[in-house]
Amino acid sequence: MINITLPDGSVKKFDAGVTPHDVAMSISEGLARNVISASFNGTRVETKTPLTTDGSLILYTWNDKDGKKAFWHSSAHVLAQALQELYPGVKLTIGPAIDNGFYYDVDFGDHTITDKDFKAIEDRFLAIAREKHEFSMRAVTKAAALELYKNEENPYKVELIENLEDGTITFCDHATFTDLCRGGHLPNTGFIKAMKIMSVAGAYWRGDEKNKQLTRVYGISFPKQKDLTEYLHLLEEAKRRDHRKLGKELELFTFSQKVGQGLPLWLPKGAALRDRLEQFLKKAQKKAGYEQVVTPHIGQKELYVTSGHYAKYGADSFQPIHTPNEGEEFLLKPMNCPHHCEIYNSKPWSYKDLPKRYAEFGTVYRYEQSGELHGLTRVRGFTQDDAHIFCTPDQLDEEFKKVIDLVLYVFGSLGFENFSAQVSLRDQENREKYIGSDENWEKAENAIINAAKDKGLNTVVEYGEAAFYGPKLDFMVKDALGRQWQLGTIQVDYNLPERFDLTYKGADNELHRPVMIHRAPFGSMERFIAILLENTAGNFPLWLMPEQAIILSLSEKYENYAKKVLQLLENHEIRALIDNRNETIGKKIREAEVQKLPFMLIVGEEEEKNGTVSVRKHGDAGKSNQTMTVEQFAELVQQEIDRTLKPFDV
Amino acid sequence: MINITLPDGSVKKFDAGVTPHDVAMSISEGLARNVISASFNGTRVETKTPLTTDGSLILYTWNDKDGKKAFWHSSAHVLAQALQELYPGVKLTIGPAIDNGFYYDVDFGDHTITDKDFKAIEDRFLAIAREKHEFSMRAVTKAAALELYKNEENPYKVELIENLEDGTITFCDHATFTDLCRGGHLPNTGFIKAMKIMSVAGAYWRGDEKNKQLTRVYGISFPKQKDLTEYLHLLEEAKRRDHRKLGKELELFTFSQKVGQGLPLWLPKGAALRDRLEQFLKKAQKKAGYEQVVTPHIGQKELYVTSGHYAKYGADSFQPIHTPNEGEEFLLKPMNCPHHCEIYNSKPWSYKDLPKRYAEFGTVYRYEQSGELHGLTRVRGFTQDDAHIFCTPDQLDEEFKKVIDLVLYVFGSLGFENFSAQVSLRDQENREKYIGSDENWEKAENAIINAAKDKGLNTVVEYGEAAFYGPKLDFMVKDALGRQWQLGTIQVDYNLPERFDLTYKGADNELHRPVMIHRAPFGSMERFIAILLENTAGNFPLWLMPEQAIILSLSEKYENYAKKVLQLLENHEIRALIDNRNETIGKKIREAEVQKLPFMLIVGEEEEKNGTVSVRKHGDAGKSNQTMTVEQFAELVQQEIDRTLKPFDV
Repeated sequence: MINITLPDGSVKKFDAGVTPHDVAMSISEGLARNVISASFNGTRVETKTPLTTDGSLILYTWNDKDGKKAFWHSSAHVLAQALQELYPGVKLTIGPAIDNGFYYDVDFGDHTITDKDFKAIEDRFLAIAREKHEFSMRAVTKAAALELYKNEENPYKVELIENLEDGTITFCDHATFTDLCRGGHLPNTGFIKAMKIMSVAGAYWRGDEKNKQLTRVYGISFPKQKDLTEYLHLLEEAKRRDHRKLGKELELFTFSQKVGQGLPLWLPKGAALRDRLEQFLKKAQKKAGYEQVVTPHIGQKELYVTSGHYAKYGADSFQPIHTPNEGEEFLLKPMNCPHHCEIYNSKPWSYKDLPKRYAEFGTVYRYEQSGELHGLTRVRGFTQDDAHIFCTPDQLDEEFKKVIDLVLYVFGSLGFENFSAQVSLRDQENREKYIGSDENWEKAENAIINAAKDKGLNTVVEYGEAAFYGPKLDFMVKDALGRQWQLGTIQVDYNLPERFDLTYKGADNELHRPVMIHRAPFGSMERFIAILLENTAGNFPLWLMPEQAIILSLSEKYENYAKKVLQLLENHEIRALIDNRNETIGKKIREAEVQKLPFMLIVGEEEEKNGTVSVRKHGDAGKSNQTMTVEQFAELVQQEIDRTLKPFDV
Repeated sequence: MINITLPDGSVKKFDAGVTPHDVAMSISEGLARNVISASFNGTRVETKTPLTTDGSLILYTWNDKDGKKAFWHSSAHVLAQALQELYPGVKLTIGPAIDNGFYYDVDFGDHTITDKDFKAIEDRFLAIAREKHEFSMRAVTKAAALELYKNEENPYKVELIENLEDGTITFCDHATFTDLCRGGHLPNTGFIKAMKIMSVAGAYWRGDEKNKQLTRVYGISFPKQKDLTEYLHLLEEAKRRDHRKLGKELELFTFSQKVGQGLPLWLPKGAALRDRLEQFLKKAQKKAGYEQVVTPHIGQKELYVTSGHYAKYGADSFQPIHTPNEGEEFLLKPMNCPHHCEIYNSKPWSYKDLPKRYAEFGTVYRYEQSGELHGLTRVRGFTQDDAHIFCTPDQLDEEFKKVIDLVLYVFGSLGFENFSAQVSLRDQENREKYIGSDENWEKAENAIINAAKDKGLNTVVEYGEAAFYGPKLDFMVKDALGRQWQLGTIQVDYNLPERFDLTYKGADNELHRPVMIHRAPFGSMERFIAILLENTAGNFPLWLMPEQAIILSLSEKYENYAKKVLQLLENHEIRALIDNRNETIGKKIREAEVQKLPFMLIVGEEEEKNGTVSVRKHGDAGKSNQTMTVEQFAELVQQEIDRTLKPFDV
């Protein structure tokens, strides 16, 4: 008999040789039906692997990341078989599971695969899958393994095997197909009910462009046809919401090869959007006792040597800026904190003056490889909604809570309701690798844990994930498509106060070190706007919309009245424009709908005579328009704004 | 007989040998009394130099720059004589007139001059001056000149003479004193009625630190004692208003050696002041049809090669920023225009879309030698209130006028009423050195001249002062101390549209080049705030004041009421603070006066009972306080703001 410990801590006794599938069956038949893969004492096993010792067992289904991995890894085997059957003589190389599906890198010889071939591959794949072939692992000698692939004249697998360190080499068989494999499979191919080839692309063998170019075939598979349909719909939707596409359509930002990659240029509408977000946060921050400062975008190298940033990032980032004489060296600032420390240091402080909260929409520059750049989410220059709080250790608890309040207010005002938080603490076993006293760390860790609990945050605690200089809290939001994004962060820092010799005079008349909190609710303006675009598909909250209304004239005759309405709207600080083209009102409405304009104000003879507008809301296709005065409309807009944008309550 | 042409164009006949003094006498005895110096056919002459040919004569008095120069140059001779008499054996070197007075570099041997010696030097100087010695020029041979100074064992003058190119060497004699000199003197020393030694400093012979260090004696002299008194008062006042001193006292900005010289860090009150100025200009610009954009602080070197900035300034500025790999090169942006051109180029335009007006508070970086840096007026990083207007040549005239309107509005709102403008046009003789067609230049030059005239500007036209890419208009303001500052600029540019291949489709359906206007009413935020500080001595217009009011409690008992008043003021967006210290009200008022707080609100038992405040205005020492409600006070503040800050009327 052996003892199997399950994730809930319960221990069950089984005969030695029991399989994960058997264990699942002992819990419920339904579970057994859905178990895809398992890990035993931290090692991946098959569902039919006999367990012969005591140990901890985790069973994975499709809903687990590891379950999906086994599912897609198994699918790669099936894809390889299908390709080999359809294109005899192809040479297989490697085929791993990835975040969304799997791929296989294949040498097709002279043959070129195009999307016209996808259907045939999918059909063949599904035909094999339906046959419910079981996967079986077996150990082979290096010589036997080499022999197989030498016979097949596959130099890639030969190279892989030759490079394998001595030890157990394993093959996986299913149906008539065999592949070099480390294991972790579905019970059988029948689990795979839907599959699609997503794309093909060129890929160099071993990622080295000096090697031969192979064809990478990307696929994805699912346990239900419905899952595939949903996934494809999500992909379409994500494409539709791609912030790079929307940014261009809505004329928010652009890039210029001449200015440089990863350096966005904000067009008028985008700059105005940024400004509204900044003003929104500034207003809340003012209420929360923050003070804005402005600092330069460069600093002497010495500044970052002091802060430690140069030692850590200097070699990998933009290189120093030299002066034509005097031998000075400057760096583009990668962070605002050293500058804020110098502001703090510009005068002596008493404990009665603290906390000081310095905020800055500070633009920082960090080098990224051009291949890593992506729209606004991965750039080389970005503006952080940065702030640094300098407080006494005793104030940390309250300050942390206040920051959480602010972050939650920001998320709420912008329609992100689905978020979680990760608390990153010290590795309890290796306390010596962290800077700062044990007492302060405990204070800070407890401050974060209590604050998160107090605020009812849905949190995960991760030990060992703290920075060496302090614990932190990161916020993750889920967007409308269920995708997870990392947004704001709050970090405690004992390091910079030490490095910059920051002090305050305590009630005891002695000098003490303040604690620093770094925080950025948006993270960066660029990244936040990208996520906002993808989350809302450009249907921003009304207070943020580049244009809140469009005046549609029934004909050019009403141009003067349209202009008068526009002027009235501007007096009410409503952003609007006029469509006075010689087009039918139907066409104008359709185009305004496409442009996501929240309100359409139709003006014609009747409206001009009565001094009214006929109001139609975006998306209200079926409803009849409402006639009202411009003042009434302004009230309507204000009500709508007040509904979503509450003032920050400290 | 010879013909003498005077500056007004009139021609007078005189006997050959007439002196400038005689000519002055022929105009009026008063003029003759005041003539200090003269120039004949563009060459400096003495007032008693006989004129023997036809020519143009200009007579200078103390009111002319050249008159002052002759006055101070003559004073340097007298100073040298005084020093030689007081300190026998001193060796004279050079002694020029400067912008404010004159100096003489002297080798005092072992003797050290301190401010204790100033009085004796001044007395000696004035004693000589009162003797009304005439200055006489005489030509000498090089050998004779060398002999004099060899006898005096003065190696400096010997070196000067040896380096003189062959030609006429002239000495100037007055009283018993002789000096090597090119001429341009007062009629006699009696004109000098007041003189003061300002300071002494070390100075290397010929400015080379390998040479011997001499003593530079700075002095200034005047034709009236009253002028000196006024000058010294002005100096005191300028020192009191020094923006570096005020910036520190008012906690507006600071510098950090670690961040780097010439890189201001804006403290909370300064950042808020900047922000108010920016919001003020943004609001006016919005009304004037400008659109804000945001661009990065770096750009590829290629961008500035295209714009021509790299060829022109590259070697003297911050050097290129290299990337750790990929071999890219970036530059800190010295100007925003290339970025705005790239924004213009991000889509095609029709003439119907123009003008486009892109505005940005863009921070730029330009290297300056550390010795050149000065507070906020000479820095290495500064934020321009920049904008670029892209228009058709036909729109230039109107656009230029609109920019002048905006600039005048800005100056007026900030209390600068005394300004002039310089129109810089082409050198008419060398038209080929300018880029752009003759027709466009004429259009642009006329546009500027007409616009300046139309707007009633007090202008000077300077030919040959235009940039090679276009004509411009610069604004000069006089501050409260009568000092002149260069502020905003408006420039026409035909060059960048060419270099960036900017186009628009005209009514003829062909592509055309737009014209660009660069303009910055403030110039830069840093420089403008410095000038504003020096002009107002920190007594900003009320709408700009960091704090508009201070609540002074009669005793700590009224703290709660003081806080209530503060809250009410905040609701009215009035910036205020509380002085609730346990000090006498007299002391609190005195300190509030020093801090230049515009309003003091005194609260005690009476005020708390009636819900009022007792209002005292800054500087109203004699007047009695006015009791009113907070609402009434808020109205008072609003009235005061409305009086100085009118909305911009387009």
